Amino acid sequence: MDLDVLFVGTAGSVPSARRSLPATLVRRGGERLLFDCGEGTQRQLTRSIGLVELEDVFLTHFHGDHVLGLPGLVKTFNLRGRERPLTVHGPPGLAGLFKTFAPLIGRTGFELRLVELDHGDELERDGYRIAAFDVDHGARAQGYALIEEARPGRFDESRARELAVEPGPDFGRLQRGEAVGEVTPEQVLGPARAGRKVVLTGDTAPSALVAAVAHRADLLVHEATFTSEDAERAAETRHSTAGQAGALAADAEVGMLALTHLSARYPVREVREEARAEFENTIVPDDFDRVELPLPERGEPAHHREQASDPSS
Amino acid sequence: MDLDVLFVGTAGSVPSARRSLPATLVRRGGERLLFDCGEGTQRQLTRSIGLVELEDVFLTHFHGDHVLGLPGLVKTFNLRGRERPLTVHGPPGLAGLFKTFAPLIGRTGFELRLVELDHGDELERDGYRIAAFDVDHGARAQGYALIEEARPGRFDESRARELAVEPGPDFGRLQRGEAVGEVTPEQVLGPARAGRKVVLTGDTAPSALVAAVAHRADLLVHEATFTSEDAERAAETRHSTAGQAGALAADAEVGMLALTHLSARYPVREVREEARAEFENTIVPDDFDRVELPLPERGEPAHHREQASDPSS
Repeated sequence: MDLDVLFVGTAGSVPSARRSLPATLVRRGGERLLFDCGEGTQRQLTRSIGLVELEDVFLTHFHGDHVLGLPGLVKTFNLRGRERPLTVHGPPGLAGLFKTFAPLIGRTGFELRLVELDHGDELERDGYRIAAFDVDHGARAQGYALIEEARPGRFDESRARELAVEPGPDFGRLQRGEAVGEVTPEQVLGPARAGRKVVLTGDTAPSALVAAVAHRADLLVHEATFTSEDAERAAETRHSTAGQAGALAADAEVGMLALTHLSARYPVREVREEARAEFENTIVPDDFDRVELPLPERGEPAHHREQASDPSS
Repeated sequence: MDLDVLFVGTAGSVPSARRSLPATLVRRGGERLLFDCGEGTQRQLTRSIGLVELEDVFLTHFHGDHVLGLPGLVKTFNLRGRERPLTVHGPPGLAGLFKTFAPLIGRTGFELRLVELDHGDELERDGYRIAAFDVDHGARAQGYALIEEARPGRFDESRARELAVEPGPDFGRLQRGEAVGEVTPEQVLGPARAGRKVVLTGDTAPSALVAAVAHRADLLVHEATFTSEDAERAAETRHSTAGQAGALAADAEVGMLALTHLSARYPVREVREEARAEFENTIVPDDFDRVELPLPERGEPAHHREQASDPSS
């Protein structure tokens, strides 16, 4: 099952020439989940993978820079004659946001579903779940963890034959975890193989809860609005410095840390180096960069750049 | 006095990879007037001339594609600590729009002034006026005409000396149109010189009123959402085809026609050729292109391309 993360907009608060406002697309198999939808998201999608008919949007909180792209996105889907429902998930208060949006959106020819997720709520999906967890941003704000189910261990075909199981439907039963006669799945399956975990924080100050949820995540997408030279301002506004995000990634023993919600005031190199001093496998994606997450037994998360890196950054 | 028009966003309804949603900046001397503010406008400004502290926004109507960039623009001004008031002008209903925007914008540290302009209303400015006029778009929608005052004729210095006027303050009085003794301004000033006129339609079906207001405009910025192959759809939705915009520009004897509000469904060349068949001096600006309007005695409006033209378009 393919799994990747497309960085659609990586600026925080204010867009820059280089970066659009927050939006991150997670693609798993045929599913596309958009996390936050800042102003300009529909065009960023058009400029990269095309304006795909995504099914789910997850909002981390309701600050303008994270949500102001939604009315336009919904209107554009409607203009194109969309028929499939679109589900928007967010913290409590989501219904109020859409009451505000209603006159801007008008009527839609498709169903717009709103699902409020509180701290600790989980959505069960086919093969994975999405858990909402509180972050520390002053305003009501939450992150999301996408956690795949562990996959059954490897099926040992020759051992099954030794136990006199016939190839065919009975092999399938054992692989699905069902017994066949006296032969139990444990006899022919290796240890369960871990699924993947991707955690997105949205805006937050360093939070022990984030570190706990992100423990051993394959990829942690964490905000880094400031560098340590503005640590006080970060604390006041409940944001993180790049160094704090790096330290948290190290504590949480994640596979890779991707920093987003970047301010144009810092050179990218400075942000990256500050985080890397704490956690080596840190990347600072540009808009349209992608992180591919192979199955754990097949390799490590890999950062694919959309464009040749700017040597000055 | 410098006067130019910067095409900040030239798409209609839906942004494309090439074009952002509607926004046009008119710069006259130190003044900057933004007409419409579609999603993405703040970033388009950042990507071109920088996010200037403009004083005035004029909305043609309240459809989402023309206004959804405003909350983010206002929030960004506020984050930067703006202190100067910002005035937003628009048709009746503007106050209602900002009631909707209020929770998205929050409090601002600068004054946000709302000015509703009805059909026929004029704003007097130093050296020019801006007139609002109804267009034909189904919804309440209006265009704007920026009309410079005629400038006094050329001062004939030697004639003034002949009439025994002393160089100095008396020359100034005559140039300002005041008599000096028995010498009247008419004796020493040539014929009044025309000011410039720029007309922006916003969204509209072809309208006799637009043609009347645009009569002999130096520049008419007219929408061209469709081409003639979709003339019926244009009529239904109260938009114009490129050919209709061209015919109107010819009727109105404008200096130059600039087409905006373009759909990605037509090749640019097709749009341009359809309009040029009716009116030769038609341009189809790309985002960030500029039209410079010299004083009429100094030359014709000139289209400056931001980037080398795509030969395929």
